[in-house]
Amino acid sequence: MRWRKISDAVVRRLPIYLRVLDEIAQNDESALISSQELGNKAGVGPALVRKDLAWFGEFGKQGVGYEVEYLRSELRKILNLESEIKVALVGVGSLGLALTRYNVKRYSEDDSFNLHIVALFDDDPNKIGNTVEGIEIHPFSKVEEIIPQEGIQMAILTVPGSEAQRVADTLVKYGVKAFLNFAPTKLNVPPHVHVASSDLSLELQRLAYYLQD
Amino acid sequence: MRWRKISDAVVRRLPIYLRVLDEIAQNDESALISSQELGNKAGVGPALVRKDLAWFGEFGKQGVGYEVEYLRSELRKILNLESEIKVALVGVGSLGLALTRYNVKRYSEDDSFNLHIVALFDDDPNKIGNTVEGIEIHPFSKVEEIIPQEGIQMAILTVPGSEAQRVADTLVKYGVKAFLNFAPTKLNVPPHVHVASSDLSLELQRLAYYLQD
Repeated sequence: MRWRKISDAVVRRLPIYLRVLDEIAQNDESALISSQELGNKAGVGPALVRKDLAWFGEFGKQGVGYEVEYLRSELRKILNLESEIKVALVGVGSLGLALTRYNVKRYSEDDSFNLHIVALFDDDPNKIGNTVEGIEIHPFSKVEEIIPQEGIQMAILTVPGSEAQRVADTLVKYGVKAFLNFAPTKLNVPPHVHVASSDLSLELQRLAYYLQD
Repeated sequence: MRWRKISDAVVRRLPIYLRVLDEIAQNDESALISSQELGNKAGVGPALVRKDLAWFGEFGKQGVGYEVEYLRSELRKILNLESEIKVALVGVGSLGLALTRYNVKRYSEDDSFNLHIVALFDDDPNKIGNTVEGIEIHPFSKVEEIIPQEGIQMAILTVPGSEAQRVADTLVKYGVKAFLNFAPTKLNVPPHVHVASSDLSLELQRLAYYLQD
């Protein structure tokens, strides 16, 4: 299910709420939580919490709060976290390696984490055929075959900036609908494709501004 | 210099403009650019480009555009990118390692990149005393001595979520004023301290939402 009119800003906050609920549920499965407390822990105001959750139905009870377990399972359904999502990573440099190891560890240890890197791509002949945590590194030309075959819908890009657009275009062609982009480039994608960017240099440069007296 | 009334949203866009200008200046040092073209490449509208840059003075000429080199050097001054900024990284796991390698490479290859990891901290006895790209790994207790001595104002946190707040509190106490936080936790910091968060799991979960039909 998908609520097409929900704004990106709301979708951005839902995983933050979910994390707060996950933490509480670990200690107390029958806990209740007020919008005030959920807001405090998520770093947003209680009115916004109520407004965000109201998009999806009537979860809370006035004066009682939300049942943590129920709200948690509803948020997981809304966010599409109930079924496995297969992910490809392109560009197995040091960042790509670290992200793959992190993902495999997280996926194996955390039952509620459903995003799973299943294929790696890199065009360096010294890397092709090697495995990382049991996942094989393929040449990029194999995208055509592996993306549809594995049903991969999401890709992590850890390629140089100059390669990112070309790589993204090819992945979109074979069925990828969401990117987590670490390349220092703005990707142009069709409207049905979503991109989240994580650009470490931009973040660091932004922070430098605030170091001035 | 620091323009205290500039909003975070503006500060967030300035490094994006700078990157566009950097790319153009590589090919043509005497280029001119219109707000339309700068906006297109940065992914924002031309009116917003003009408004953002107007905060800092009169850079452009009507009907002519901006001188790329001049605007670039002004943006670098505004963003505090002209002097070296020393950075500490805490938590030398796989992500911390990858970020350190990336930073050292970038800092050595790119003259215009001024953020430099100069100290690593980790409490794993197997790591203490080792070096990564020539940078020594210290026990966290040495923060007290090394942060003021090196004049470190910025820190990258790649520690577990459960450690992040304690680590941040200690770093703030000894003079850190900006964090790039990779730990899956919201940090509480005093008003003079700035935090940028890069939470990969949250980004992936947010993208999962958009994979639904």
